[in-house]
Amino acid sequence: MDLIKLTEELGSYKSDLHGKDFLLTWEKSEDDLKAILHVATILKEMRQQNISPRIFDSGLAISNFRDKSTRTRFSFASAANLLGLAVQELDEEKSQISHGETVRETANMISFLSDFIGIRDDMFLGEGNKYMRQVGQALDEGYASGVLPVRPGIVNLQCDMDHPTQSMADLLHLVNEFGSLEALKGKKIVMSWAYSPSYGKPLSVPQGIIALMTRFGMNVELAYPEGYDLIPEIVNVAKSNATQSGGSFKVSHSMTEAMRDADIVYPKSWAPFHIMQQRTQLLMNGDKNGLKELEQVCLANNAKYKDWEYNEQVRKLTKNADALYMHCLPADISGESCVEGEVSKETFERYRIKTYIEAGYKPYIIAAMMLTNRFSNPAEILKKIIETNARRVL
Amino acid sequence: MDLIKLTEELGSYKSDLHGKDFLLTWEKSEDDLKAILHVATILKEMRQQNISPRIFDSGLAISNFRDKSTRTRFSFASAANLLGLAVQELDEEKSQISHGETVRETANMISFLSDFIGIRDDMFLGEGNKYMRQVGQALDEGYASGVLPVRPGIVNLQCDMDHPTQSMADLLHLVNEFGSLEALKGKKIVMSWAYSPSYGKPLSVPQGIIALMTRFGMNVELAYPEGYDLIPEIVNVAKSNATQSGGSFKVSHSMTEAMRDADIVYPKSWAPFHIMQQRTQLLMNGDKNGLKELEQVCLANNAKYKDWEYNEQVRKLTKNADALYMHCLPADISGESCVEGEVSKETFERYRIKTYIEAGYKPYIIAAMMLTNRFSNPAEILKKIIETNARRVL
Amino acid sequence: MDLIKLTEELGSYKSDLHGKDFLLTWEKSEDDLKAILHVATILKEMRQQNISPRIFDSGLAISNFRDKSTRTRFSFASAANLLGLAVQELDEEKSQISHGETVRETANMISFLSDFIGIRDDMFLGEGNKYMRQVGQALDEGYASGVLPVRPGIVNLQCDMDHPTQSMADLLHLVNEFGSLEALKGKKIVMSWAYSPSYGKPLSVPQGIIALMTRFGMNVELAYPEGYDLIPEIVNVAKSNATQSGGSFKVSHSMTEAMRDADIVYPKSWAPFHIMQQRTQLLMNGDKNGLKELEQVCLANNAKYKDWEYNEQVRKLTKNADALYMHCLPADISGESCVEGEVSKETFERYRIKTYIEAGYKPYIIAAMMLTNRFSNPAEILKKIIETNARRVL
Repeated sequence: MDLIKLTEELGSYKSDLHGKDFLLTWEKSEDDLKAILHVATILKEMRQQNISPRIFDSGLAISNFRDKSTRTRFSFASAANLLGLAVQELDEEKSQISHGETVRETANMISFLSDFIGIRDDMFLGEGNKYMRQVGQALDEGYASGVLPVRPGIVNLQCDMDHPTQSMADLLHLVNEFGSLEALKGKKIVMSWAYSPSYGKPLSVPQGIIALMTRFGMNVELAYPEGYDLIPEIVNVAKSNATQSGGSFKVSHSMTEAMRDADIVYPKSWAPFHIMQQRTQLLMNGDKNGLKELEQVCLANNAKYKDWEYNEQVRKLTKNADALYMHCLPADISGESCVEGEVSKETFERYRIKTYIEAGYKPYIIAAMMLTNRFSNPAEILKKIIETNARRVL
Repeated sequence: MDLIKLTEELGSYKSDLHGKDFLLTWEKSEDDLKAILHVATILKEMRQQNISPRIFDSGLAISNFRDKSTRTRFSFASAANLLGLAVQELDEEKSQISHGETVRETANMISFLSDFIGIRDDMFLGEGNKYMRQVGQALDEGYASGVLPVRPGIVNLQCDMDHPTQSMADLLHLVNEFGSLEALKGKKIVMSWAYSPSYGKPLSVPQGIIALMTRFGMNVELAYPEGYDLIPEIVNVAKSNATQSGGSFKVSHSMTEAMRDADIVYPKSWAPFHIMQQRTQLLMNGDKNGLKELEQVCLANNAKYKDWEYNEQVRKLTKNADALYMHCLPADISGESCVEGEVSKETFERYRIKTYIEAGYKPYIIAAMMLTNRFSNPAEILKKIIETNARRVL
Repeated sequence: MDLIKLTEELGSYKSDLHGKDFLLTWEKSEDDLKAILHVATILKEMRQQNISPRIFDSGLAISNFRDKSTRTRFSFASAANLLGLAVQELDEEKSQISHGETVRETANMISFLSDFIGIRDDMFLGEGNKYMRQVGQALDEGYASGVLPVRPGIVNLQCDMDHPTQSMADLLHLVNEFGSLEALKGKKIVMSWAYSPSYGKPLSVPQGIIALMTRFGMNVELAYPEGYDLIPEIVNVAKSNATQSGGSFKVSHSMTEAMRDADIVYPKSWAPFHIMQQRTQLLMNGDKNGLKELEQVCLANNAKYKDWEYNEQVRKLTKNADALYMHCLPADISGESCVEGEVSKETFERYRIKTYIEAGYKPYIIAAMMLTNRFSNPAEILKKIIETNARRVL
């Protein structure tokens, strides 16, 4: 790929990412999203060409994980590192939701020499995204008051509403698989619920997918057993996006019907919105018995839909019997990681490498979010780096 | 600020920091302390001017925290990072006090490619500062024997006696608030006990403050309810410092009386010295029941002094009803983080941003301690870096 | 030392380390091992001459410790850091042995921007080295499929069979103590069991020592109380190595007899192979009672051999009463870290600094393994770095 050409193309977007936290994809314009995809593409190509994308000679990227994570933790660390930042972890009590002023104070205390804060807070409905905005307000005030030398940018590493680094990585994967963003117009993508022997998987992945994929003229279908609803407001965002982009958005309740002629499938489990609401209440009250009971009810309910498994039979209903299978990983693989799961062993194996490639875009997406947050003219900065042509490895 | 001028001024101090650990401020000369403040000022200004202060192309800074910490951990990591070092954490069993030879061995095992070790050990009276010196001796021997290529410098990140990074950051804050070190002469600063619903807060902050602020001709008053004594030897250090610097040092037992006409106030809780002695014994014996009983006794005792709260009424007794309020954070804020605490909600809010600015000097103080420990001619090194003018961020 | 000369000498070895994981020393040729020692020597000398060995402008080195470790963790971090890599820790559930596909997936998920993975997995007999190869296969596939931009190299930081970074550091220490690798020919080195009040120490250190030291024409004697056998296959590897190198290998059952005229002694405790097999079973079954019983049996058995202590009497049997005492540390020191142990207080003290110097080679050995894994022509790369002559510290 011609890096200089790619950089020049970047200049054509009218994006408004500078100085703004990336919290929800639906708060960003189409050009914002395209700019992120474009910068990620440039950074990935620079890796291939052994060009060092180092922008910072020093500085910290804070990782604030309020939930377990390996993959996103690594993606965040990889992204920070390629730009020249060191990662410092903020280790908090995970069971407390902080009081307002503690968030405000801590946000400043960790930011004196920090450039970015990556936050993952997805366990409590109504709390995660809210916490990110609280941190943002604290940083705004700190910067305006002269407490902080820069206003660190916040990257949403998954909240209760959206998972932008995941959905944007997924989108970049689709762009590469189908050739371009334009080539995705009219393609049918099915975000489908799938059976899982565990419960409580976050809503932010399916919500992130329907909210993002409806931005680009795709025909998006959301399929789930009756009762497994997502957050209604976000479903409405998807509907409205689809209308605006000339695509379509449909909700249905049969996996097999939905999968018919699909170009892209994303079968993944989640807990119903109303269940996650109950779970949040119980977690906040520390009600261990209540949680155990809820788990039993959910697992029993899930068990009614064990046929919602993506397998060879279902695959054969898709376009050319070869719809691109997607998953944020790890998947519940029937006969491998569990007895009955989201996807059968043979079908997963057929697309396994593709799912790894899908995952591989995430560090570059995160780095793109950081870079565009920091520089008002990312094209100029990238051009400078490419021309300097420092080696990443000797 | 003119960085080259600042660097030249630095050369005028007759400091003796090179190759010496920074363990207690009262072991350092006045020029030593001025040099640290000066280097911290230069490093902070370099940040403003986007000049990279990188001195190390590689190397480790070890963080050895024997007690919980978020803020100081971040300050240490920020300081190491701006100079070009990677932080590596030494994760030890926190409940054991190591045998002599294990300390000696471990100190060497972690130092083969390390440049600094930051140690926080403040829980056991008589042990923390002692441990730091043990480590220092082990490093001296390792370096002298050819085991280590350099003798890593030790930075005291809080011990049982002093908290130099805190008190030095506080002093630099005062220098900036009042205009110069000379302008502090004759100012009244009150280090006062304040009520807290928790017990066992370390003595090292009030001890560090009285020992340092008496060095510069200030009128330092230490106020606490009878019985809440600090370590007598350190109180004597403060007395003697005050005499030498032409200031004064006074102990009193009424918060309101002490606060009268104060220019600077530092209301903060601590546990009495004799209580901390008992607590150390019980902790070392693993006597959980004894600890619980001691806690009850202390909380009951504290509760007699709930009126030792810094609030609007007390503020109005200070100079121009606007003494600079200081706190190492987090403060116990009445009606916010607790029902009754060290400071009222309104009064804390009035000075909240100031306390954040106060905290913001710490990374630069730590970096200054590192730099002056490493280089016999810090002015020369800083001049070189400023002239090279490498960008911190593109 | 003349670095350019050392680099030219390096070019004379016919090593085949490029693109190959370093898992067992006995899978490497003599020239491979010599190249590693040589590169480590160059890197250590570069440190002395303040030359920065930075090869990477960014990149991650993953540390995957499935067992507690301080020293090796620090050595790995130091090695990664001197080459320019940031360390990212993979925090896994330590009690589970992962399913095949989870290893395969995780290996890729952490490797998108990683250059090396250091793995320590020594608790389960038959599992550790196997896991490392599984990871290797997953990385091979990831790289071949275009998932990963490079195939990260794996460094064995101790497995159930070998501890190559330890034995190679030990060998480099011997080369420095005796003057050259050739000078080691004909020297008598005794790898002896020694009493310890704890049980379950890994077999990989004695196994690593006998398998490596027999490569260079030394007379290697393995001494232990009857029943304290190592893994038979590895004992056979040692026998066969000794034959090939013109040295010798002998097994005996008396510490004092073995130590007679020894040039080098390595008294260290281990649990018998068949005990470690039982322990692995019990650990895998989570059988806490079974483990407690096994521990009792083992401690009782160990107690029969308290006289297997290296002390002044035994030292006096060695060559010139001054055999070089070696230990991977920490040692069980009678009268210091325990009542009765592997070595007496006085004897350990006599050689304590030597054991620290021995340990100090490990970071350079690890860095050498990384560098030779990455570059097909390490001599050329090192020459370039030496000529560029960038300062490690200003």
